[in-house]
Parts: sequence; C-alpha cells; structure tokens
Amino acid sequence: MDSPRLIFRQLYDKTSSTYTYLLADAQTGEAVLIDTVMENVDRDLHLLSELRIKLKFVLDTHIHADHITAAGEIRRRLPGVKAGIAKTANVACTDVHLSETDILCFGDYQIRVLETPGHTDSSLTYLCEGMVFTGDALLIRGCGRTDFQGGSAAKLFESVTEKLFTLPPETRVFPGHDYKGFTSSSIAEEVDLNPRLGSGRTLPEFVKIMSDLKLSRPEMMDIVVPANQSCGQSLVEKAHIQNVTVDSLYQNRSEDVLLIDVRPEDEFNGDLGHIENVSRITLGDDLNSFLQGYERNEPILFVCRSGKRSMQASEAAIKLGFKNVSNLEGGMLDWNQKSLPVEKAGVRK
Amino acid sequence: MDSPRLIFRQLYDKTSSTYTYLLADAQTGEAVLIDTVMENVDRDLHLLSELRIKLKFVLDTHIHADHITAAGEIRRRLPGVKAGIAKTANVACTDVHLSETDILCFGDYQIRVLETPGHTDSSLTYLCEGMVFTGDALLIRGCGRTDFQGGSAAKLFESVTEKLFTLPPETRVFPGHDYKGFTSSSIAEEVDLNPRLGSGRTLPEFVKIMSDLKLSRPEMMDIVVPANQSCGQSLVEKAHIQNVTVDSLYQNRSEDVLLIDVRPEDEFNGDLGHIENVSRITLGDDLNSFLQGYERNEPILFVCRSGKRSMQASEAAIKLGFKNVSNLEGGMLDWNQKSLPVEKAGVRK
Repeated sequence: MDSPRLIFRQLYDKTSSTYTYLLADAQTGEAVLIDTVMENVDRDLHLLSELRIKLKFVLDTHIHADHITAAGEIRRRLPGVKAGIAKTANVACTDVHLSETDILCFGDYQIRVLETPGHTDSSLTYLCEGMVFTGDALLIRGCGRTDFQGGSAAKLFESVTEKLFTLPPETRVFPGHDYKGFTSSSIAEEVDLNPRLGSGRTLPEFVKIMSDLKLSRPEMMDIVVPANQSCGQSLVEKAHIQNVTVDSLYQNRSEDVLLIDVRPEDEFNGDLGHIENVSRITLGDDLNSFLQGYERNEPILFVCRSGKRSMQASEAAIKLGFKNVSNLEGGMLDWNQKSLPVEKAGVRK
Repeated sequence: MDSPRLIFRQLYDKTSSTYTYLLADAQTGEAVLIDTVMENVDRDLHLLSELRIKLKFVLDTHIHADHITAAGEIRRRLPGVKAGIAKTANVACTDVHLSETDILCFGDYQIRVLETPGHTDSSLTYLCEGMVFTGDALLIRGCGRTDFQGGSAAKLFESVTEKLFTLPPETRVFPGHDYKGFTSSSIAEEVDLNPRLGSGRTLPEFVKIMSDLKLSRPEMMDIVVPANQSCGQSLVEKAHIQNVTVDSLYQNRSEDVLLIDVRPEDEFNGDLGHIENVSRITLGDDLNSFLQGYERNEPILFVCRSGKRSMQASEAAIKLGFKNVSNLEGGMLDWNQKSLPVEKAGVRK
C-alpha cells in the first residue's frame, strides 16, 4: 500500500495475533502508529528509526483486554509523541481524547475518527486514504466479542452495518487481529461474506450469534485492562520491581523470600525444570487468593521461562499492594544456561 | 495492494511463519497462488471460492524444507490448475518447469520469473506489478540460510545484489517468511538496511556471516523435502494410512499393534496425559533407529495431540517402508473428550 508519498506497514504480534499499523508521510516524515503492543516497542521504534520517520501519534482503537498497549512506553521514550484513544474511554493519561469526526493530521495525510462502539463502549475506527483500521469492531469474516467492557451486540451491529458498511465498497479493511492468517479484506467483501454481520444478517440473528458464543475470559484481562487504562505505562517503574539475576538468586537466596514460579505445570516439570523449593501458580490464575495470608511487605520473587511472564506476575502483585516484589531476569533459560541445579517432577538434577 | 483490477492477498501460516500470496485479475477472475502450505488448503480454497476467482497456477519459489507445499493437493482438488516450480528443481510431477525470463499470464497480468539461486540451487523470485515474491532469497532485513539443498552464500549474494537490488527501488518486497511480524519491505529499504546483504556488504563479509550462523537442521526436513519433491502430494493416499477412531482403538486394541505417541515428553505427561502402554518418540527424532528390529509388515499406530503430528509420523513410517500404518484420528484431544482412561507420568487416572 506504500505509494511514493504514503508509507504503510502492517506489523504482526504472534503471541496475541494483534496487528499494529504504521502510516507515515514519506515527504515530511511524520508518522502514526495504531494499536501497538508493549512487547514490540523495540521492533517498532527501530523500524521508525530505520525509515527515518518521526512519530507524531500513537493511537489505540480501544482499551485492549488481551495485550498491553505500548502507547505510554513509546511516549516515554519519544517525548513529544501524543497518545490518543476515545474520549469516552476516560483514560486520563492520554493526550488526545478522540470522538466522531475528529481529524488527526500527519504530514499531508489525515486520519478520520469514527466512533464504532459495541466490542467495547468506546471503540474507535480510524479511516485513512481508503483504508479503515477497525480494531475489534470488524474482523475479517468476524467481529470482536461483545460480552465485557461495556460491549453490546446491538451497538456493534449498528456501528458496523450503519457506519462501516456504508463506506465506499473498495475501502480496504485492516483489522486489529486475525487468527487464521488473513491480513486484509475490503468493505465490499465483508458486506457480502461476513458470516456474523454481512450477507444480510439481521440484528436479532446477530444478537443470538453473539450471546451463543460463550467465550471464556481473556487470560490476562484483570492485569491488561487496568494497565491499558493507564496507557500501558510501565507499572515496573512506578512500583520499583527489582530485577534479580540468576547468579544473585543462586548465591544469595534467602529463606525469607517467597519464590513463585508462574509457568503451567507441564512447563514447570518440562525440559528446563524448576528451582528447588519454589511455589507454583500459573500466570492468569487467582494470584490474590494464592497470596492470601502473606503480609504486603513480605518479599516475593517471581520466576518463569524467560522473565516476561514473571514480570507480568510482578506487576499483578504490585497491583495487589505488595511492596517488595522482584523478578528473575532471564528466568529458567538463564538459570539453565548457567547450569544451576534444577528439579524435574521432584527429582533434583 | 488491491486495485480495482488486481486482487492481492498476503496470507500467513503461524506454525511455519510462511507467507502465501494470492494474486488475481478481478475482471477475468484468473488467479495465482505462490508458496502454499498444506495445512491451509481449506482456508485458501475457501477464499478463492468466496472471491469467485479461478485458480490458474499454484507456484513455489523453491523446494521448501520447513513446510509441505499444497501444490499437489490443490491441483488434485481443482483439476486444470497448473503447478509450477524451477526447471532446475527437477520436480517431475510439476506442470510448468520455470526458468529465467519465463512469463506466466493470469488475466491481463503477468508474472515474470527470475532465477535467484543461493538459498537452494533452484530458488526463483516472482515479479508482478511492482511486487517481488522472493521466497527465502531475500527476507526483510535478512535472507534464507545457504547450508543445504545446494545452497551457496556466493550464489545468493550474486542473486540478491545483482538481480534483486537492481530492480526499481520502489519495488515492494514480499518474502516467503518473516519471524518478527514484518509483512513487507521495499528494494530501496533492503539495499539500504539489510544487515547481511545491503548497507554495502561485500561478498567475503556475507560468506563469513552465513558460515558463522551454525543453524540446526529444520526439524522435519527429512520428511518435508521429499514430500515437496513430489509436489507435496498426499503420501497418505498412495500408502493407504488407515485412520482409527479413539472408540475403535479403545474397544479393539490389540497387543500386536505397536502404539507410538509422537509428542515431546512434557506434553506426553501434561494435561492430556497418554494412553497406557504406549511407546514414545518425539516427532522429528530418528524414527528409523527407533523402529529398527520391527518387521516392515508389523502394525503400527501413531498418536499425538490432535492427529496431525501422528499423521506426519505415519507418512514418515510409510517412507521407511512400513506397510501397516494407522493414525489415531483426533488424537489425545478426542481420547480425553470421550473420558477414556489416561496415564500422567505413569499414574493411571
């Protein structure tokens, strides 16, 4: 979709199946990122630097429940960048509070804001140069769920059929996610072929489809949604989660520290094994109940495979009010690389 | 990249990080698929049918070592479709044996063939409407490995720097894979930024980079490469691998049948457990050694989580000359759904 003037890149996050979009005016170098993912900050900022373009806005289509936005982190690293999300999302930390008919300019290009509630009560769609970035309002042959965050099947039906489906049929559809390997579609195609919202579906049919879905809650929702309500800003920074190296843990392990491995059981007993006398709770399970009976100033150290999930657990513990939280940097990968002793299903090796 | 006339779709396979490309003339409905993946046949053919386009060619950029092409299977399902690959690949079953300067027409559009050996000795790049489909010759900020299938760093350097890098700089680059979530690039960008082949790299530097990589062999290479040399045509069909249901196995299990679970150990002892008195070898390990001592007409039944990996193992056993091979349909997922007894780490539940 690159033209000599408009730079366009679709970027993918494999873990959450999220698409991030980069739009830039090649001449002025001004750029916009839509729906960033915290884990990909380095990749995305490196690309901006390689292409010698200057980020102006980092936008979210909605408050995500499945991944943490990089908006806050990017703004921290690139001062001057403005974060934007729907005004109705009530995200105090954002810079630009967007609503219907708002226009954002980057170089000689414009992004038009459409309010498309239904997946959440504050979902937006961004329109630029014949492309719509629909977040979870309209997916390729599907749509986002409507069962939390103020979601409403009736509202989503109205947003999609009255607002998105009335766009020019050749408009390219770029969704917030895809789980089957599709990267784009068009309004004409979705009007014709979307099994939930297109092909002549009625509102009662759609409402029934959505209420019959019976989906389980997103695993990390209780951590991710609050994080996104604060622009995904690093909780670590605010709370001073301490990073601990494997060497330091091995040499200075204290019995006072509650060591918690947050990997599922099969991984815990898998090839990398686990550290002796460690507790275990799978990340996403009820950490609050698990930690009941512990004082809020007791030291806790979280462990996982690489240090990523344990960081999420550390942030969750901070949210629960724990003051003395550490994270094992590099996790069991580093631990094994240093050939430190591990247990596998109770056997020390 | 869709224009009113040209339909263009980039499709993704998450397991192998492979991109498949669909190109079609919207007016005549004639279409081409490049680098298909066996597991996605249904998805891709469904898309063709939804878009009411008629496949003319199914092309491969090279003989893949990491996934099985769907070319043979698509041709079987859509008689009249022609499979194409490099003439120098010596794939007897293909219909179109391609070499430099060949032109393939679909509707009013053309695909030009460029020979770009180096990743393999018969790698092609396809050029169409300002886009290059480079397979593994040129990846975004990278390139394919050059250490097997007649690969050569020197040849790849020549192919990329003399043939691809001399295309118009605005040419869009669509690679055969990406592992970081990038979907496209441009020739200008790769000339400027590719750390292996661009940014002024010399041949000796590139040869050293490639020889220093020390990559491990692709897991399934010994199965995948021969399969692709026969257009990925279903080995199952030829060899009559028998599909067995979980009910039938549970009710009629015979002691004469060698039952082999092909999941790794952590999965084998994980949530789904495993069947009593089953042998285990991880798919991709040396099946030949494992089966040494067994007569070629002894009955073998393979098991995995869903029936997919066990089918690959069944095909591998057929390749080794075993005549009486069965596959557990639906695998341990079905087994558990029917609440049949499982063992977990030796304990029956």
